[in-house]
Amino acid sequence: MNIDLNADMGESFGMYKLGDDSSFMQYITSANIACGFHASDPSVMKNTVDLAIKNNVKIGAHPGYPDLQGFGRREMKMSDQEVYDMMIYQIGALYGFCRTYGAELHHVKPHGSLYGVAHRDESVAKAICYAVKDFNDNLYLYIMKHGLISQIAEDMGIKTVYEVFSDLNYDSDGKLVITRTHEAHDSSAVAKRVLRMLKDNKVESLDGDDIYIEGNTVCVHGDTPNAIDIVKNIRNSLTENGFKVQAP
Amino acid sequence: MNIDLNADMGESFGMYKLGDDSSFMQYITSANIACGFHASDPSVMKNTVDLAIKNNVKIGAHPGYPDLQGFGRREMKMSDQEVYDMMIYQIGALYGFCRTYGAELHHVKPHGSLYGVAHRDESVAKAICYAVKDFNDNLYLYIMKHGLISQIAEDMGIKTVYEVFSDLNYDSDGKLVITRTHEAHDSSAVAKRVLRMLKDNKVESLDGDDIYIEGNTVCVHGDTPNAIDIVKNIRNSLTENGFKVQAP
Amino acid sequence: MNIDLNADMGESFGMYKLGDDSSFMQYITSANIACGFHASDPSVMKNTVDLAIKNNVKIGAHPGYPDLQGFGRREMKMSDQEVYDMMIYQIGALYGFCRTYGAELHHVKPHGSLYGVAHRDESVAKAICYAVKDFNDNLYLYIMKHGLISQIAEDMGIKTVYEVFSDLNYDSDGKLVITRTHEAHDSSAVAKRVLRMLKDNKVESLDGDDIYIEGNTVCVHGDTPNAIDIVKNIRNSLTENGFKVQAP
Amino acid sequence: MNIDLNADMGESFGMYKLGDDSSFMQYITSANIACGFHASDPSVMKNTVDLAIKNNVKIGAHPGYPDLQGFGRREMKMSDQEVYDMMIYQIGALYGFCRTYGAELHHVKPHGSLYGVAHRDESVAKAICYAVKDFNDNLYLYIMKHGLISQIAEDMGIKTVYEVFSDLNYDSDGKLVITRTHEAHDSSAVAKRVLRMLKDNKVESLDGDDIYIEGNTVCVHGDTPNAIDIVKNIRNSLTENGFKVQAP
Repeated sequence: MNIDLNADMGESFGMYKLGDDSSFMQYITSANIACGFHASDPSVMKNTVDLAIKNNVKIGAHPGYPDLQGFGRREMKMSDQEVYDMMIYQIGALYGFCRTYGAELHHVKPHGSLYGVAHRDESVAKAICYAVKDFNDNLYLYIMKHGLISQIAEDMGIKTVYEVFSDLNYDSDGKLVITRTHEAHDSSAVAKRVLRMLKDNKVESLDGDDIYIEGNTVCVHGDTPNAIDIVKNIRNSLTENGFKVQAP
Repeated sequence: MNIDLNADMGESFGMYKLGDDSSFMQYITSANIACGFHASDPSVMKNTVDLAIKNNVKIGAHPGYPDLQGFGRREMKMSDQEVYDMMIYQIGALYGFCRTYGAELHHVKPHGSLYGVAHRDESVAKAICYAVKDFNDNLYLYIMKHGLISQIAEDMGIKTVYEVFSDLNYDSDGKLVITRTHEAHDSSAVAKRVLRMLKDNKVESLDGDDIYIEGNTVCVHGDTPNAIDIVKNIRNSLTENGFKVQAP
Repeated sequence: MNIDLNADMGESFGMYKLGDDSSFMQYITSANIACGFHASDPSVMKNTVDLAIKNNVKIGAHPGYPDLQGFGRREMKMSDQEVYDMMIYQIGALYGFCRTYGAELHHVKPHGSLYGVAHRDESVAKAICYAVKDFNDNLYLYIMKHGLISQIAEDMGIKTVYEVFSDLNYDSDGKLVITRTHEAHDSSAVAKRVLRMLKDNKVESLDGDDIYIEGNTVCVHGDTPNAIDIVKNIRNSLTENGFKVQAP
Repeated sequence: MNIDLNADMGESFGMYKLGDDSSFMQYITSANIACGFHASDPSVMKNTVDLAIKNNVKIGAHPGYPDLQGFGRREMKMSDQEVYDMMIYQIGALYGFCRTYGAELHHVKPHGSLYGVAHRDESVAKAICYAVKDFNDNLYLYIMKHGLISQIAEDMGIKTVYEVFSDLNYDSDGKLVITRTHEAHDSSAVAKRVLRMLKDNKVESLDGDDIYIEGNTVCVHGDTPNAIDIVKNIRNSLTENGFKVQAP
């Protein structure tokens, strides 16, 4: 069984460095690259696309709210049209760099609060789906199975990839708990949690209950203090358990 | 003989309106659409692309310095790499909207101070040319014949379109005088000036000397007080004098 | 009885002009000056402070969400601390210009969605009140009587000024209906509506019911198409009915 | 003899951390706090003012060009009025936080390219000096003795503090070489260099020549890899050589 490892990459900005993409990129199979609205700038984007290509990692656009200070983690009340338009803008901007390298744009994954809102607000979900489909109906859309965007995307014929989060918490309703910063976690515990999510479709929620979960990509974070240790453990554990780590 | 009429379009931003694009668009043959750095936002860009398509006007990217407050008219000392990267970002972003409409991206014209610098700074000129070529070597590049970017672009095999400015002044060296705001001009005088530039290759500089000038596109401005009157006069005068008004 | 006429001033930005402040300023008694987050820039702020002083108009800070594209009219989920901090930043920035002129900073009025949220979210309301009080406990705070910030402000000993809106609608719960753009209104109808709000404490809501309303300042808008006509009518009607038009 | 140790503080932005201010602040006597244009945001500013107060460090405004991506290190061609206005805005914004703490605003030091331009462009130098004087003629202005702003400031009666740079290079004309990033240096060599600058008024330029230098504050950087080691060495070396480390 194939499993994808995706990570948010290229979230540095100007002088400001976030994560160690050049070390981390080799462990993942698809990269969600920030597009300059919640993080990144044109030069960071170019370098990150370059790095992904060199590591044979699939390139995805990672559009977010226009809020650098809040890193796209502060919800904004935008109209559906504004959401659609900012999606096209950001996807197009990242595509620009792919094109100069002759590389393919592979997927789109909304970022931060936009990702969260997409799972509970129908009109935002639709705006995102239309943007992905209108830009290129061959693009994969990375989202969670749980949440209303998944049904909307499937109804529109978009190629969905469902993701589970290695190191973020879920509440007992299966909703993701978005945090401002990412903390260190025990890497072998994270690897076991991921394996359980994929093999048994179960994960323990914040309340201690087991909830149903389903996915074919695992989101790992590059900006936790022990990020590389965690991704290595996950990858090894997956391989040892018969998964083939590979992008869709 | 064919002659193109180009104008900077889509320079509104959020609540702020600039020019009356919906009235002006019908008089031009190619539109240079702002890409969100010196002006515009994703929603303005979408609407402007839509408007251009409806008016059968060719769509060009109009990238500028990242300076909304200064409207891209304040020179910034950016590295060549930064110039290249911000060109790709902006061209890609505008291309995103073209793509959703199935429309073609036709040309690129640098904006404001970036345009000015491109004519006198070799490394900036090269960065711009490489960006245009790397994105799509079929794109036209709108620049002035006078200035070092024209030779660089031609040496790189880029399809250049040379422009003359209907309502901006030149100094006696043939350099364009970039102003912060655009003033009203006598429309028939402007039409005569344009005709003289195209037929006699002459224009009077700020110092009163005639200088040599050459072009196959005329830049008209949509944000002068009597913009529509001017463009109508130019267009009529060109047609009456045997020019066919048409984009390259 | 004294009544204040306040208006949002200084909402231009760079090249972009909004309203005709230099014509409008003479008709009001207090100006809410944008602070660069939802509109304006340092040079617009300086000129607007200068204009207010010349017209003997009281100067207030008009802080908003950090969202130029949305003009502060898109709600943002910021932490209380972030709201407090951005209030201090913006008030301080405007104060800087007052100080260079030896002018007094007179009041604070939150802008757009921040204003709306302040009337229904306790923690945002408190953050705003603490910011005003901590900056200078002599500042007036312009808000609506209806909404929870009024009680919070009064409990903290802040000098509140209650405002009624000449040309915005209320719902039947007395909540203001924030719109993206301001439309033209019949100026004598607006003047009558204002008079009724001040003398009878009544205004017709969007649903057609009369609701209770109370205020000692009237907000007038400078960016409606017939703004000057409206403000003149309101001012004349107030004076003719025995009000003295004067800032607190 | 008194000597001040100043450092640029509060240059983080949102999620992005730069330097370790909470460790570094204790070693300096005056802090130049970024004001949100080239770095920082309102919450970082508040926390940095708080930290300076707790460490008994004098608070200065550190205004820069409006260019977060370029960290204020890319020169921008702004008008004198724009420079003046953005100085007042930034100084006022920082003053806002001082005021809520009852703390004094002590000095102003322009940042990055604005600092560089101020030493060679007369009109920019004057705009900066007028802004400082108009805001509060008791503020100290931190600049270099070498460069035309020093004479302008002194002629205007501004209280100047001349600074020497512990870890930046000078060319043979005594001009500072502004770099994009700060590298690690041998801490005892830096301490010796500083001592020589202060005691002998000499420093070796990039070309190997000794040039004359003069100052009563030493600028140390908090974002070099071994920043704390360097500042400790400088401080110890100064104390051992009879200097009293203290802000003006």
